[in-house]
Amino acid sequence: MTVKEIISQLTLEEKAGLCSGEDFWHLKSVQRLGLPGVMVCDGPHGLRKQASEADHLGLKLSVPAVCFPAASATACSFDTALLEEMGAALGQMCQAEDVSVLLGPAVNIKRSPLCGRNFEYFSEDPCLAGEMAAAHIRGVQSQNVGTSLKHFAANNQEYRRMTSSSQVDERTLREIYFPAFERAVKKAQPWTVMCSYNRINGEFASENKWLLTDVLRDEWGFEGYAMTDWGACNDRVKGLKAGLELEMPASGGVNDREIVRAVREGRLDEAVLDRAVERILNITLRYLQNHKPTVCDLDAQNQLARKVARESMVLLKNQGALPIAKEQKVAFIGAFAKTPRYQGGGSSHINATKVTGALEAAQGRFNVTYAPGYSLEGETPDPALIAQAVSVAKAADVAVVFAGLPDAFESEGYDRTHMRMPQSHNALIEAVAAAQPNTVVVLYNGSPVETPWIDQVNALLEGYLGGQAVGAATVDLLFGDCSPCGKLAETFPLRLEDNPSYLNFPGVKDTVEYREGVFVGYRYYDSKKMPVRFPFGFGLSYTQFAYSDLCLSADTLGPDDTLTCRLKVKNTGSRPGKEIVQLYVRDCTGAALRPDKELRGFAKVTLQPGEEKEVTLTLDMRAFAFYDVESHAWRAADGTFEILVGASSRDIRLTGQVRFQNPAQAPVQVHENWTVGDLLADPRTGPAAKKLLGQMMPDLDLEDEKAKDDMMLHVMLNLPLRSVRSFVGADFDNDRLRGLIDKMNAALGG
Amino acid sequence: MTVKEIISQLTLEEKAGLCSGEDFWHLKSVQRLGLPGVMVCDGPHGLRKQASEADHLGLKLSVPAVCFPAASATACSFDTALLEEMGAALGQMCQAEDVSVLLGPAVNIKRSPLCGRNFEYFSEDPCLAGEMAAAHIRGVQSQNVGTSLKHFAANNQEYRRMTSSSQVDERTLREIYFPAFERAVKKAQPWTVMCSYNRINGEFASENKWLLTDVLRDEWGFEGYAMTDWGACNDRVKGLKAGLELEMPASGGVNDREIVRAVREGRLDEAVLDRAVERILNITLRYLQNHKPTVCDLDAQNQLARKVARESMVLLKNQGALPIAKEQKVAFIGAFAKTPRYQGGGSSHINATKVTGALEAAQGRFNVTYAPGYSLEGETPDPALIAQAVSVAKAADVAVVFAGLPDAFESEGYDRTHMRMPQSHNALIEAVAAAQPNTVVVLYNGSPVETPWIDQVNALLEGYLGGQAVGAATVDLLFGDCSPCGKLAETFPLRLEDNPSYLNFPGVKDTVEYREGVFVGYRYYDSKKMPVRFPFGFGLSYTQFAYSDLCLSADTLGPDDTLTCRLKVKNTGSRPGKEIVQLYVRDCTGAALRPDKELRGFAKVTLQPGEEKEVTLTLDMRAFAFYDVESHAWRAADGTFEILVGASSRDIRLTGQVRFQNPAQAPVQVHENWTVGDLLADPRTGPAAKKLLGQMMPDLDLEDEKAKDDMMLHVMLNLPLRSVRSFVGADFDNDRLRGLIDKMNAALGG
Repeated sequence: MTVKEIISQLTLEEKAGLCSGEDFWHLKSVQRLGLPGVMVCDGPHGLRKQASEADHLGLKLSVPAVCFPAASATACSFDTALLEEMGAALGQMCQAEDVSVLLGPAVNIKRSPLCGRNFEYFSEDPCLAGEMAAAHIRGVQSQNVGTSLKHFAANNQEYRRMTSSSQVDERTLREIYFPAFERAVKKAQPWTVMCSYNRINGEFASENKWLLTDVLRDEWGFEGYAMTDWGACNDRVKGLKAGLELEMPASGGVNDREIVRAVREGRLDEAVLDRAVERILNITLRYLQNHKPTVCDLDAQNQLARKVARESMVLLKNQGALPIAKEQKVAFIGAFAKTPRYQGGGSSHINATKVTGALEAAQGRFNVTYAPGYSLEGETPDPALIAQAVSVAKAADVAVVFAGLPDAFESEGYDRTHMRMPQSHNALIEAVAAAQPNTVVVLYNGSPVETPWIDQVNALLEGYLGGQAVGAATVDLLFGDCSPCGKLAETFPLRLEDNPSYLNFPGVKDTVEYREGVFVGYRYYDSKKMPVRFPFGFGLSYTQFAYSDLCLSADTLGPDDTLTCRLKVKNTGSRPGKEIVQLYVRDCTGAALRPDKELRGFAKVTLQPGEEKEVTLTLDMRAFAFYDVESHAWRAADGTFEILVGASSRDIRLTGQVRFQNPAQAPVQVHENWTVGDLLADPRTGPAAKKLLGQMMPDLDLEDEKAKDDMMLHVMLNLPLRSVRSFVGADFDNDRLRGLIDKMNAALGG
Repeated sequence: MTVKEIISQLTLEEKAGLCSGEDFWHLKSVQRLGLPGVMVCDGPHGLRKQASEADHLGLKLSVPAVCFPAASATACSFDTALLEEMGAALGQMCQAEDVSVLLGPAVNIKRSPLCGRNFEYFSEDPCLAGEMAAAHIRGVQSQNVGTSLKHFAANNQEYRRMTSSSQVDERTLREIYFPAFERAVKKAQPWTVMCSYNRINGEFASENKWLLTDVLRDEWGFEGYAMTDWGACNDRVKGLKAGLELEMPASGGVNDREIVRAVREGRLDEAVLDRAVERILNITLRYLQNHKPTVCDLDAQNQLARKVARESMVLLKNQGALPIAKEQKVAFIGAFAKTPRYQGGGSSHINATKVTGALEAAQGRFNVTYAPGYSLEGETPDPALIAQAVSVAKAADVAVVFAGLPDAFESEGYDRTHMRMPQSHNALIEAVAAAQPNTVVVLYNGSPVETPWIDQVNALLEGYLGGQAVGAATVDLLFGDCSPCGKLAETFPLRLEDNPSYLNFPGVKDTVEYREGVFVGYRYYDSKKMPVRFPFGFGLSYTQFAYSDLCLSADTLGPDDTLTCRLKVKNTGSRPGKEIVQLYVRDCTGAALRPDKELRGFAKVTLQPGEEKEVTLTLDMRAFAFYDVESHAWRAADGTFEILVGASSRDIRLTGQVRFQNPAQAPVQVHENWTVGDLLADPRTGPAAKKLLGQMMPDLDLEDEKAKDDMMLHVMLNLPLRSVRSFVGADFDNDRLRGLIDKMNAALGG
């Protein structure tokens, strides 16, 4: 039976019913047609399938599943193939558990380091977030399991997330908060998209037609169904009309009745309802028709989790303590060595199959001692634990302090109010570093922290929330089994106050203004030339890389052209390693306010010592464009762009230039508010403008070098034509003004 | 003949004619009624009366007049009595020269240090700018000469000033860009107001009815006439309707005819024209009827200019080199010692009666040698001049380097692109400081500069543009005839990039967005806790002051109350001096995004050694209020405010607290998008909300300390009532929802 045939057999009540859940995790079934109520589940860095129906809040223990690193970690891998592999494992688990859609990935931009849910999000950069999400989606969906790209859109905080309105100008939405969604939709076509809780410029995402239909479907070509986040439904009928097909969880029948009444009263076209049901059933049937009994190899997935963690950790400092030689005596300090923090709290919380801390992973293989250093409860330093830790550290060749953020410090549901680690962690690090020159810090945290002790420690490895195999991966890197190869997907600012959203985050009452506009993350720090703790895209390796031979395929390009950028990267060190090459574009045209640079491509390259490879990255018009709100279109301006290839946003190794050239445009019309200076600058209107200037300033010599500091010249250049009469006397009447404008327009071919 | 009688005898053409100038500087006469065409003249820190009609651009040499310090300097005096005295002198000069209106003062806010015209403006703070302007106006108008408060409004740059639109939200206009105008209008009733060239949110200031009528006249009570800046007229008829009475300069008859045609064609009510003519003639007759032959004592005015300069200079650093003992051998270094920069370029340029440089002022009185150090032309360091200067500096006990910004670096007509001084000045200072430990720098500049040598010099005196007696005033201070007593009216940031407008200034094409909103100047730096070179309100003295005994007249106040703040200031040093006491208010209510603190009052106190005085400052509701765009009204929120009394914005000496309490408001209406948390927080709705929370989270114990970190609790507190059903099951239908809302509203007395 085709979907259309099913719909033709459904009653109005049944169709309305299919537009919301049966319970917390299931869509409604239609028993008489043999249509089962498929399940959707939280994730997405693991499967969180609720074991029991009885738990209506959906928070009870779920089926054991492998917990992979969170998105804040995996983004640092810059490795789309790896994300796809991880996605396939997740999809396999869903097939094994008969779950039709794994809710995620989440691509919201890290506007502020304080957002409680940042650990679930990829990056402050939409290109990186979009590529990672697309890979994740491809992987999951390769197993014929759907994803739900979320939270669409402009939800960048937890504070009052269900009622707050994100006030964002369209250009900023288009350039910063939309592109990760756009890229994922266009490149990977997720089966579903989940709308966010918040309002956007006053309109709830769940009933925003511009968002859900005009942009998502008509512009980007989304083909699946849109669902609410759990409880995000406001006006159900308005939502249906806007393009929101599925309300989750159940509405208790309330909104089924609302929909039926709206159709009966003529307020809702039944065709709109039919279309929604069709979209939902298309996806449900796609799942059902491809579902097959699957057995999931949890051990293999655990090993994959270890690999993903290893590829995601970022080495932020190393003065030589790393890698640790296998024969060295090593002190593991800090309770996180034994009880790692490896995932965040909230809807993404996975019931891990097992958890390996670094201590467990190292014991037996290496000469490791241990001291807890701090209590897992509270944040007050414990002098006795610190003293014990210092003593253990002193007795070793190297001390590795495991620290970061405890669960209570960051979670879905609330935002952080500061960027500090617990006092107990900072005090421990400072005490150990004072006693042991070879002090290495390993951080387990979901988002950036202040590192007041950074100058006192020898090395720093940022592990983020590394999933259940975090300890094994950490040990792999500490002891040099492989080299760290992640780079930061977000800036670590020096201070919270440096963040561009600082003054406006998280807003007042139900309004949060995104006044920083497109200047988010490194786009702000780099444009303002601010010092940061660690820049976007930064990460060290145990080996070194040299960049050379940037070669661009063209020196001029137009809207339909692509630019191929080739360069070479060489491993100049003595260990194998991987380098993440980043390509940024800088707009030098002055046509719009643009960030100093924007990431437009990247590649991760594996290199043996001495090996050199060519990297190819391709750019199209969008890589150069800004969103022009006047023409409602992407526009790359005529003029010069710089191609910047670097190892981080602050470490540009190679630069090139390209000119963008649009086809001739329809001639513009001179009007009375054109300035003398604008007309002087155009060769076609320049002579007439120069004559006019001469009438106003008879003594002016434009060729004279000193003229550039002439105050009156500047005044006159800024003068609009309508004001010329104030400076040339009575005979410059309206007839002469209009005559002059006509002459200028003729010269412009208008 | 009354004004109304005159109007009744005027033809339509004559009335239209009176709405624009006869020439560059005169209003039109009506000979047959014996009405002369009165003159208006540029200034305002001196009279710039054009000697010749022939110069239609109005830039030729003007009648000699005393050039007082520019507004950027006089603002630093924080001395309203002094400004009034200076204004009276200016008014006297106008009477002597038969000038009816002296165009100024200019109260535009220093949004960016780059604005070319900043030297003409007072401050980054509207309270200070408004008080200074009101005093200036009172002074001028005490001589029965009018002023023209300008440039109204939101004109904060020279770049494309005649066509650019300043995109500013209403709250920011009301709190930052309007209040200096508002204060001056309400406190001093300027005879005229001059509109600015630019557009505000798309509408030209010259034809903006909201600006010129609704706000200026209806809200603030302005009684005089509004005129265009020279050439600011766009659509003359629209301008008349908007409340723009006088176009300047002449329109060559073009707009006279436009007005006549509009009346004849019924597009302009003749009553509107009559009202405009009446407003113009009211002012003209006020001048004519009070005009009397006056002789101006230019020597006395020159002495006043010296006093004003002395009271305005700001001592920014002093490690002991100042004051210079009379017997010390002093090297004056730098061409500005001989040829001071004492005023800025453009419409405010005065033909000074005489100019006294510091060298001239000191020679004969002190043991002074001199070396030019740099050329007045160009900015390249001259090694020979520097070597000579070093040699002269070494041979002295103290070196005073005169440096700053040459004319070409800042002017009306164009903005600066950086904050640097000429290389030649910086190199000279560094070379002299390396050779002479007692190096003092004196700066003559209109706006903040980078001071890369600040740690190498012993002392720094900021002289701004000090008027024609600048040298005498400088010498008075350097040698301790009196103590410096000015404080900065603007922040000196460390770097241009630190400025809040940096990313948006001066905009692209004809749009400049004021995205920093109310966070201008110290409001930004202090809120972001940023280091600055010198903070707002900062200035040293040769003596010291102690603050004590802050006493507030009430601990609670309401909308109609005032708060009297009393405190004591004591001169604890050994020299006479003057202290500028600043009162800032901090909003701790959280009702709106507010700057860390805002200046709401100040006083300058003269104190002999050991003397103590009581200072009284009074605050009304506006001192606590923000502009609430929803209610279109000023609103001080219920809650706590801090009263901060300090010697600068970063040097708070005394603090107090006061509660603001509004009368009971009409009860708000609970609706389905109220959150559980909001309802829980109100004692009247709390019990019902608590019960609801218990249904959703049966295991929750709100009394448990750990609950504050409970993720689900946070989720539920942010839950709007309409989403409760998603978490309590099917029986929470719309009837129950509405019943609950009704119950809550009843509890709120609604």
